[in-house]
This record gives sequence, structure tokens and C-alpha cells, in this order.
Amino acid sequence: MHRFSYKKNNLYCEGCKVEDLAKKFGTPLYVYSQKTILDHFFKIQKAFASIKPLICYSVKANSNLSILRLLIQNGAGLDIVSGGELYRAKKAKCPSKRIVYASVGKTKDEIREAIKSGILMFNVESVPELKRINMVAALLKKRVNVALRLNPDVEPQTHNYVATGKAKSKFGMDIRTLKSTILSQKAYSNVNIIGIHIHIGSQVTVPEPFIKAIRKVKSLIKELKKENIQIKYFNIGGGLGIVYDKEQPQTAKEFASKVLPLLKDLSCKIILEPGRFIVGNAGILVTNVTYIKDSPQRRFVIVDAAMNDLIRPALYGSYQKIVPLKEMRKRKPHTVKTSDIVGPICESADFLGKRRYLDVGEGEYIAVLGSGAYSFSMSSNYNSRPRAAEVLVKGKQASLIRKRETYRDLVDKETNI
Amino acid sequence: MHRFSYKKNNLYCEGCKVEDLAKKFGTPLYVYSQKTILDHFFKIQKAFASIKPLICYSVKANSNLSILRLLIQNGAGLDIVSGGELYRAKKAKCPSKRIVYASVGKTKDEIREAIKSGILMFNVESVPELKRINMVAALLKKRVNVALRLNPDVEPQTHNYVATGKAKSKFGMDIRTLKSTILSQKAYSNVNIIGIHIHIGSQVTVPEPFIKAIRKVKSLIKELKKENIQIKYFNIGGGLGIVYDKEQPQTAKEFASKVLPLLKDLSCKIILEPGRFIVGNAGILVTNVTYIKDSPQRRFVIVDAAMNDLIRPALYGSYQKIVPLKEMRKRKPHTVKTSDIVGPICESADFLGKRRYLDVGEGEYIAVLGSGAYSFSMSSNYNSRPRAAEVLVKGKQASLIRKRETYRDLVDKETNI
Repeated sequence: MHRFSYKKNNLYCEGCKVEDLAKKFGTPLYVYSQKTILDHFFKIQKAFASIKPLICYSVKANSNLSILRLLIQNGAGLDIVSGGELYRAKKAKCPSKRIVYASVGKTKDEIREAIKSGILMFNVESVPELKRINMVAALLKKRVNVALRLNPDVEPQTHNYVATGKAKSKFGMDIRTLKSTILSQKAYSNVNIIGIHIHIGSQVTVPEPFIKAIRKVKSLIKELKKENIQIKYFNIGGGLGIVYDKEQPQTAKEFASKVLPLLKDLSCKIILEPGRFIVGNAGILVTNVTYIKDSPQRRFVIVDAAMNDLIRPALYGSYQKIVPLKEMRKRKPHTVKTSDIVGPICESADFLGKRRYLDVGEGEYIAVLGSGAYSFSMSSNYNSRPRAAEVLVKGKQASLIRKRETYRDLVDKETNI
Repeated sequence: MHRFSYKKNNLYCEGCKVEDLAKKFGTPLYVYSQKTILDHFFKIQKAFASIKPLICYSVKANSNLSILRLLIQNGAGLDIVSGGELYRAKKAKCPSKRIVYASVGKTKDEIREAIKSGILMFNVESVPELKRINMVAALLKKRVNVALRLNPDVEPQTHNYVATGKAKSKFGMDIRTLKSTILSQKAYSNVNIIGIHIHIGSQVTVPEPFIKAIRKVKSLIKELKKENIQIKYFNIGGGLGIVYDKEQPQTAKEFASKVLPLLKDLSCKIILEPGRFIVGNAGILVTNVTYIKDSPQRRFVIVDAAMNDLIRPALYGSYQKIVPLKEMRKRKPHTVKTSDIVGPICESADFLGKRRYLDVGEGEYIAVLGSGAYSFSMSSNYNSRPRAAEVLVKGKQASLIRKRETYRDLVDKETNI
């Protein structure tokens, strides 16, 4: 459920007419619904209420400070993956004991900053990394908490690029390495291994891969118990899929109903890392039609947003719904041809959607739905295009949460000329 | 030919030891060779010397101001595709009569700015765009020069994402539309149609598609002559392929030897738009090894550069050579395992190379070759990673031409918090 719907033929985000926002803030424009973000967050919270998990929002999905702040104020922690995200977490005033830090490539500087910030724990992805953390902690005279990330070798049934729990992927440790690392934990005198972490992938719509992975961890935790080793935290990661097209993903409630029975007898504190599930459908990309171009083989709707604003279609072959801000139902549907929705960038990778029914004319506005996650956060300045502005809507109020870049910004770091 | 080679086991860019640059400027770091850039530019200039073409460097390949300035000072014009690139062209002091402007989605504002700047001509991609240019020119009381871009419907034998001259692509006009537009040019009272433009794609390694497209334009120009219409400019675009792996692309000389005979009897001024050919092999991405991770199925070399710095491998499946800064030949080759070279970003799309022979250890440096074009210009802040610094080398002198971004820069535009 999201809060983008038509009222009197006009697309609204909560109480704001999107066209008014487009005119006020210009296009391309990202518009987010605060109510949708919170709804999704509360859905997870409610579904798992019986075990009171720590819900660490995955910053990389959408890292705007206002969105981080909103979630933090409502009880979320943060799942970070870089020094830049740690900086954002601190800027957004996230309590440090609600921060977990994953990534296969944490550098010495990043580890040092995170230890100094007193984060809850690192999710450690390899033995060399554990050694590095131990070494940095020793230098700082600290003892730091870590979870080891298990690579559970499951097939998450998603795009290869966002599958992260298969044996051939770079993430986590295989089960043998992980177990022997825990058993030799005395070798790491400045580290407490207090948790196990898994994250099998992104946009996973079925429960089976989660169940399979959780079962593997469960038997491991029980095995360790026999050796008198108590695992206090079990971080089951994120990856819950959402509806972009005709998917019928599990709801938070369905997901919880499958995994809660597995978790109940573990006496572990559970951590969840949802990202896309919270913000994915809470954002749209609004763009203006520059030209309608009819070529003998295709109709092209050429818009002022491009692959630099939204790379998911080109990079993952992702489908995202595209709708006009003026409702199409009220127009003549028989006149509608299929169109490719493309941007102005000079390569064929620059498309937002292909073969869509969309009855729009030059100067009109359209919206790409499902643009809340992995959209602005992946945007670039390719073709020297300033990045879009971002607006957060709360009821009838719309706040600019990121200013549009200017041409001046493009060259600001360039020197020696 | 490029100017990156080993001297006494160390990789040099011209007279600079790359490791010294990495230590001085940090990693990830883009390093460009001025001599290589100019060599490639002069190769094209020389190959086509007999017809003295206007060589408009394609800004989108690498738009750093210092590189633009270097080429402009050596006689190049610029091929731009956006208002942002026009801004760059002016910042780099490109004479306006050496600027041509293509793009399927030029907005009214962009057209106005370009007309005011007095650019040589627009490369017009559709009839609606021609009408728009005519209208804006009328408002400004100007008469502006344009070339019409022909979509020649040829197969350039390259990656689909960079093929731009097929009928189903968004680029240019089909030949019938183009011809009828020229014949009805009186309808556009503020526009002079003075040229024809083609651009069939990027990284095209064989001459045939160029020849096929040029032949089509040639017969069109001759037909038009019969109608007493003189085409003054023929812009044959860019797209010359380079060596990333084992390609054996045509040289500039070979290319010229094939197309010059076709162009000689046309009495048109020829425009060329090389981008990758000039800068592609003139740049490398230098990165430091954070961890060596051995998993049962794979060895991973985890580095501090990532898909946000270089998206070509993930987006196009591109191959780029990866070499250590310390020459491997002097080490024990029998100990070398194949490795996946990956970054720290939390998805499987984050790789720079797969199954490579690379004998390096933690803390050592490696370089991704062929990173001069479509590399920095496509980089993003994904995973809240500040973008890399860029350095231009001239002999023994290295100049920082773009400063590394800071964490502060990441959130600089974010407001309301």
C-alpha cells in the first residue's frame, strides 16, 4: 500500500497534488510519502511485535537525511555499509547502539571511526576483516562487538546482481569457516563474537530461501550451545520484495508467520534490515515530457529524467510502472499507442520503460512509480546532468529535503583551470 | 598506444610512478596521461589531414574541464549533449563556433542557452525538436544553423546499450522523414538546415557499418543536389573502438583510408566526434587492496574502488584489464590463483573484473586500465561513497584536476534537518 492515488483525475501524494509539486520544484523530481514510509516500517514492527526486534533500516536504499531522521525518531536503527553512511547516521542523530555495520570492504579508517562512534556491532564478512577489526580495536584499547555473516548458500530467486547469499558471491563466510572462527574466538582478544548475520539478497518475494537460511543458522546456534557458546544476536538481514509490476510478494505478516516459529526457541535478540520494503513504493520520480517522437518503428516519449536519475531499468532490467499525473482513464484509451519512455542521454541504455501504454503529450508530466529505493541513491551526473531535487510529503505539506544540483555544482571540485 | 608501462617493475604514467600518485592523492584515483590524449587526437587529425575536418571531442566520454581545455587548446571543438555540457564548454573557453549540440531531449531552456552562446549548430534528432528550435530562435530573433541527424538503420556490431543507429533506437530521423523535412525547410523560417549528422554507436571496431551509413548519406546529398539543395556539413559522428582486451580495432589511419575516398567528391565540410578513441586508453583507475578473501569457491580481491566509481563492468558487461602497480612478471606466476576483483558495495553487481590472474596482497595497489572514457563521468555516490579524485599527468608532473569528494559533500544539498 502506498499513498499515491488519483483524486479528481490528478495524481496525489497524500494531500499534495503532484503536479503542483512538479511546477513548484521543477523536474526531474523525487517525491516521497512520509505516511507510506512509516506505514511500511510499522507493518514490520507489528508483524514481529512478539519478539521486539531491532529494525535497522538499510541506509543504502535511500540515504536522505530527512528519511533517516524520520525512521530513527520512530524507533528504527540503521544498517550501514560505509564510512559515508556512518557519517549520515551520525548527522541524522541515530543512537549509536542502534547501528550495525556490514560490507565486505571496510577500511581501517572506516573501522576506526565506527569503533570510536560506539556502534552496536560490525557484521563481519571474512576472517581477514575480523583480524583487522581486532587489530584496530586493540590500538584503540577497546573491545568491540561483532556478528559473523554467514553465507548460507541459498538461491534467493532474484536478479543475480542483488543475490548475496550464494556460495560464489563475495559476501559472508561459509559455514565451516564461520564455525571454526567462533571456536577460535580467543585469538581475537579485542572482539566479542556475539551474533550471526545473514542477508540473502534483495527483492526476494518468497519465504523459502529465508526459511532455509534461518534453519541453517538455527542448527549452528544449537551446535554452538553444546560447546557452551551463547549467540546473543541473530540478524536475519533484509531483502523483502515489493510490488513493482505483478509480483505477489509475501507481506510482512506472512513473512513473520513463517519465520517467528523458527526464531522463538532461540533466545536471541533478532535484528532485521529492511530497506526496499520500507521506502521502495514510498517514492516516485516525476518527469516532464519534452517531446513525443514518432518513428516508423516506435513511438518515443522523451522525458527530462534519464538513466543518470534512475539506472534500475538499464542495470537490472527492472520494471517500474509509469503513469501520467492526469488520469488516463478519463481520456480516450483507443488512441493510446505503446511507447518507449526514454531520457535525453546519448545511449540506448537510457530508458525508463519500454512498450508502455501512456497517453501523454509534450509538456505533460508523468511519474515513475516504485522509485523510493535504489533510485536517487544510485543517481549520477552522467552527461553533465545535475541531480534531481527530493521532496518529502506529509499530508498537505511538502518539504524540499534535497536541493536540485546546479551546473556550478558539477565543476565545483575541478581545479587547475 | 598509451603511456602506461612498467619501468623497473613499477607502473608509470609517462614520467610519474603511479604508486607515488596513489600515496600522494589517495585511492580510488583516476590518473590520465596528457600525452596519450594528445597522441590520439593528433592521430585522427593526421589521418584526416587532407580534408581538414572539425574534430569535436565528445564531452560525455570524460568531461573534466582540464581535459576539455587541453583538447580545445590543441584545436578541438566539442560535441555536447546537454546544458551542463554547454556550461562546461564555456567554462573551458571553447570557441562557440566549434561547438555542436546533439541529444534527443533538448529542453527549451537548453536550446535558448545554446542559441545565445552562438554555437556552430544543433544536431537535430526529430521534427518536434526542429519546430522547438525554430520557435525559440524566432523568440530570440535569431536564425540558427542545424544539421539533421539521420538514423541510418545499420547494425554497428557493438553492445546494444551503445548502438545508436538502428531503426528501433530513439536517435535521429529515418531517411524519408529527414528528406521531406529538408524539402520543407521553408516552414522553418528561423532555421538553416546546413548539415547531415550520423552517429551509429560507440566502441565500433570494424569499418563496414560506418561505410554503409556514409554511403546512405552520400546518395541523399546527391539527390538533394539535384533539387538544388546544398548540404555544407557532413558530421560522421564518433564511435571508433579501442583495445580493452583482444579487440583489433581499425586504426584512425585505416578508418580514414576507408572513408576518405567516399567523402572526397562531396564538397562538404566534415565533422568528426571522437570520444572514447581519444581518452579511453588515456586513463586508469588506481585502487588499493583492502582484503584478500578466500572462500571455498572463489578468491576475492576486495579493493577500495567500486561500481559507483566504475559501472562499465556491471552495466555493459565490459572487460577492462587489471594490473598490479608492481609488475607481476617478477613474482612467482605459479602461485597465482584466479580472482574476482570486487568492491565493498553491498551487491553482486559490484565487481571490476572476474576470473583474473592477479598476484597481489593486502595493502598493495592495482590499476584498472582503459578507464579514461565513460568511467569517472558515470560515477555516482552509491553506498554514500564520495567520488574519486582525478589527476592529469604531463611528463613528470601530476596535477590534481578534480578533488576527492568529502563526506560533507554527500549531504551538502540536503536540507530541512
